[in-house]
Amino acid sequence: MSQPVDRFEVRLAGSGGQGLILAGLILAEAVAIFDDRNATQTQSYGPEARGGASRSEIVISDGEIHYPKVISADVLLAMSQEACDKYFYGLKPDGLLVVDSGLIERVPSSRAVEAPITRIAQETTGRAISANIVALGLIGGLTGVVSRQALQRAVTARVPEGTVDMNLKAMVAGWEKALEIIERGGVGPD
Amino acid sequence: MSQPVDRFEVRLAGSGGQGLILAGLILAEAVAIFDDRNATQTQSYGPEARGGASRSEIVISDGEIHYPKVISADVLLAMSQEACDKYFYGLKPDGLLVVDSGLIERVPSSRAVEAPITRIAQETTGRAISANIVALGLIGGLTGVVSRQALQRAVTARVPEGTVDMNLKAMVAGWEKALEIIERGGVGPD
Repeated sequence: MSQPVDRFEVRLAGSGGQGLILAGLILAEAVAIFDDRNATQTQSYGPEARGGASRSEIVISDGEIHYPKVISADVLLAMSQEACDKYFYGLKPDGLLVVDSGLIERVPSSRAVEAPITRIAQETTGRAISANIVALGLIGGLTGVVSRQALQRAVTARVPEGTVDMNLKAMVAGWEKALEIIERGGVGPD
Repeated sequence: MSQPVDRFEVRLAGSGGQGLILAGLILAEAVAIFDDRNATQTQSYGPEARGGASRSEIVISDGEIHYPKVISADVLLAMSQEACDKYFYGLKPDGLLVVDSGLIERVPSSRAVEAPITRIAQETTGRAISANIVALGLIGGLTGVVSRQALQRAVTARVPEGTVDMNLKAMVAGWEKALEIIERGGVGPD
């Protein structure tokens, strides 16, 4: 993604406790502070937040961002079945759906990228909680919306003290997985 | 603020590293998850973020929130002179300006609440970094936009492990300061 970006919308959706808000912050800071674009990152809390759902929306542009919420997503990361079902129809027709195949049974598209995100986190770092950062690496590698270096710097700047190495490993594991998927020619079950 | 809220806009502005993004998350989660209203919380990153400025915007409503950014703030917290100068004109005419009097020399309004937020943090917890949570307590106590209990629960849920007690102390110190200011009849230098 070295060409100018007019407006690129990412939605991360799943359950509370999966760290998707932190992931959204990191992605926005990576592209804006380290990759020199503009970005906004928004959380909206309504009744569904009280039910345990969580989502973060990131808008990336080289120009000014007039409306900071997702209108029609270029990328949807779904980390729960509920999130997948709810937000799939908010994805652009040619948008990228990325799902955690260990958490989601019914994938509404045959063109989705299905990767066992939480399992990769568990196997790479010993901690399932780093799945959010695996997902960021995966999205970065698949889309090129953020440079690998910027994402590394933003992860380093934002994750809790003492967890930087673990989270960088998680990020690299996600990025490598993306390259493997691209090499294989793409989408569908892992 | 027990009557219905149509739209209440809060802007927290200062420098990177002051924890204003975390503070914004906590305020939004307090009102939405624990006080049962709706809320959005947005960060926007542009050239000023690369210069070290930081801001978080929270919109609170009992109805649907169609536009998640601040249009005309009801409350501005300014934690740097630059932020104060830049965002003062985005405050409603009867809006509340809260400044850290230890960090800001030129206050553009005689009706501002000036409190030594970072000094209170340092004196209460021994750590200036808890100034963001002192500020939340102060805003909560001054405006009633969030209940004390909801803010306590949101602080507890969101701050890093091992810092809950420190941050609850900081929050209470800010809240007590607000009550003292109200009792004194208000605004102006501390």
